[in-house]
Amino acid sequence: MSVSTPLSNPAVELTADIPAYMRAVGSASRDAAHQLRRADTGCKNRALAAMAEHLNAAREDVLKANACDMQRGRDNGLDPALLDRLALDDARIDAMIEGLNQVAALPDPVGEIDGLRARPSGIQVGKMRVPLGVIGIIYESRPNVTMEAASLCLKSGNACILRGGSEAASSNAALSTCIQAGLAEAGLPAGSVQVIATTDRAAVGELISMPEFVDVIIPRGGKSLIARISREARVPVIKHLDGVCHVYVDATADLDKARAIALNAKTHRYGTCNTMETLLVDAKVAETWLPELARAFAEHSVELRGCERTQALVPEAVPASEEDWGEEYLAPVLAIKIVDGIEDAIAHIERYGSHHTDAIVTESYTLARQFMAEVDSSSVVVNASTRFADGFEYGLGAEIGISTDKLHARGPVGLEGLTTQKYVVLGDGQVRQ
Amino acid sequence: MSVSTPLSNPAVELTADIPAYMRAVGSASRDAAHQLRRADTGCKNRALAAMAEHLNAAREDVLKANACDMQRGRDNGLDPALLDRLALDDARIDAMIEGLNQVAALPDPVGEIDGLRARPSGIQVGKMRVPLGVIGIIYESRPNVTMEAASLCLKSGNACILRGGSEAASSNAALSTCIQAGLAEAGLPAGSVQVIATTDRAAVGELISMPEFVDVIIPRGGKSLIARISREARVPVIKHLDGVCHVYVDATADLDKARAIALNAKTHRYGTCNTMETLLVDAKVAETWLPELARAFAEHSVELRGCERTQALVPEAVPASEEDWGEEYLAPVLAIKIVDGIEDAIAHIERYGSHHTDAIVTESYTLARQFMAEVDSSSVVVNASTRFADGFEYGLGAEIGISTDKLHARGPVGLEGLTTQKYVVLGDGQVRQ
Repeated sequence: MSVSTPLSNPAVELTADIPAYMRAVGSASRDAAHQLRRADTGCKNRALAAMAEHLNAAREDVLKANACDMQRGRDNGLDPALLDRLALDDARIDAMIEGLNQVAALPDPVGEIDGLRARPSGIQVGKMRVPLGVIGIIYESRPNVTMEAASLCLKSGNACILRGGSEAASSNAALSTCIQAGLAEAGLPAGSVQVIATTDRAAVGELISMPEFVDVIIPRGGKSLIARISREARVPVIKHLDGVCHVYVDATADLDKARAIALNAKTHRYGTCNTMETLLVDAKVAETWLPELARAFAEHSVELRGCERTQALVPEAVPASEEDWGEEYLAPVLAIKIVDGIEDAIAHIERYGSHHTDAIVTESYTLARQFMAEVDSSSVVVNASTRFADGFEYGLGAEIGISTDKLHARGPVGLEGLTTQKYVVLGDGQVRQ
Repeated sequence: MSVSTPLSNPAVELTADIPAYMRAVGSASRDAAHQLRRADTGCKNRALAAMAEHLNAAREDVLKANACDMQRGRDNGLDPALLDRLALDDARIDAMIEGLNQVAALPDPVGEIDGLRARPSGIQVGKMRVPLGVIGIIYESRPNVTMEAASLCLKSGNACILRGGSEAASSNAALSTCIQAGLAEAGLPAGSVQVIATTDRAAVGELISMPEFVDVIIPRGGKSLIARISREARVPVIKHLDGVCHVYVDATADLDKARAIALNAKTHRYGTCNTMETLLVDAKVAETWLPELARAFAEHSVELRGCERTQALVPEAVPASEEDWGEEYLAPVLAIKIVDGIEDAIAHIERYGSHHTDAIVTESYTLARQFMAEVDSSSVVVNASTRFADGFEYGLGAEIGISTDKLHARGPVGLEGLTTQKYVVLGDGQVRQ
């Protein structure tokens, strides 16, 4: 069932012909991207600040629109967890306003020139950071993603096309009004940020098939949505499919640190992609350490699923199946495997992991170096919780998502991941000999 | 017509079942990539030096194999330009040996950690440069690409799968023997560099559809080959389709510099992707400057194709059609358009260019800044020839190709473009609060 939501002052009016509508949206984005490329930092910041003010002034409208979405969601039997993500209140609107102001305060990555060096020919060569162009973002339920995505794309000089979920259509339309008012106040084109005015699925199909208008797609949501978009897209996709994160406790670990890290990595939050899903324990310390750790997990009501050796030490652990090793539980469930040293641990992570975030606990300098070099994940952690794999914790100031791809952006993606570098060559009339 | 060439000591023996053969090649590459990730710089350099020695010792075999390819090429009526690219002689073998030694001498990008900084939580976060994994390279005729690609992938810690053209099958098999001998001498697995032993087209189809074994595809060759691979690949592709490069001569230019740059950018070499294909001249200086420049081009027998205003000033220019503006001639042909200032020039480049390399000639500080910021090409040049857009001229030490993509590598791609960065987190037992 698709919903069409009239927007105030959109760059492009919705028409019944979805492909034509989407191409018009794409074309308006491309035009806006040309203007954003030349917009200075002050102008972009003024737009962000104005959006925050308009959002503050439009609280009632936004909450009213959100109430419509919530009512429709309840009528449609939406999952309570999704309803919770969908819900807005004053605190969440405050957080959006705060987020807009924080993005305005971040340094502008655009225009930075790296490593400008003189070459023997007399030219100087460096790399200049520039916007990607047009970014398409496909996401579900949470309306605050609309503001996050709009602000990060705008600050990095990109135009964006936002395709939220049908369940949040009214909320997103109300937020779009605030965004458009902010853009207009700063003199930026309406095409800079476009919320798709229909939840017709055909719109997504078009969005991911217009390389002439869209430079990159960032899908956020469930694994099946992201997998499908990656498979079908004719535009590069920055994504992470899942987070099957490991903590490996080596025999050389400080076992108090290991205990604190294992507990935190699993129980700090169950539903996040950087939560530990499998604990690997060196056989040399398992016998003494693991039963005690199991008791601590029992206090958190975490279900344990163990390999045969684990079950021998931890009777309450249920047998882990082959599928458990590749599972992202996002729940109080933990798979535990006893391994024979670091080589075995790295081989397990390579075979079953998702290249998201993996940690070792060790006091050995040599093993720490080996783990860092050989584990092929977007974040490799020594003696700290996997839960640190996050744009804010890493100091990026913001995060549009986490990439487990190897090309372009890997790990938490902030403003820099929304830009690219081109070469600049400065000369005085030099020619090739 | 496909050719199968028996290889000496391959990691995987060719079988009639091409998909099974390619999957075995992919799997051997993935295994080798794990070992290469932990190979130190000295080991990789020893392999490169040993390859150079084996190539030197095997000159006769390589030249004999090449003679077979040349004979088959002549029998099949291969284009003389392709035959020239295919031909090896002692000088070209010397150049390959020199190339191997040069790559061995380059700094190893792997393991470099950037920007390791302490965070308020007490963890340190930085980015470590690591190999991509497995790189598939698809190319045509020139056998020296085999050595170039093998050496750059190896030095950057990647396994590679090389798929050369059928016309060079025997030459590539002979080079593969030298490569394998070098790998063995350094104790590196045979799967580190694999030359595909068949020119069956099905092998390419498999190579670009195995994301589980191949991390990135780099196609080198004609535009249609590259376009087809990009369209069909299920693996990320680093590519450049074409180089429709512009030089814009503004009224503020030093016209002597402009003349030297325009002549060099067109006539230094006609067949390269960074050669100027369209000259844009500011109307304010066209009348005095363009006729004189046209005479200089006439001395080089360059055919000029002009817009209407150009034809009025340069009677020998033939009319340019709409197609000429997007054409990569790779020949002594130049399109010329008179434009009204920098805005008009940038709009033309945006509309007709290929985002490869574009230059401005100007003495104006403000216009130089504007051109650098607004022209969305992999290299943007001020007051120098477009011919500088090259990995060696830029100081990369080597070049596997030029990317006009925006994501990951943009512009000339050297060793760094064959690597990626992952986050590393160093702690002392920190957990998330």
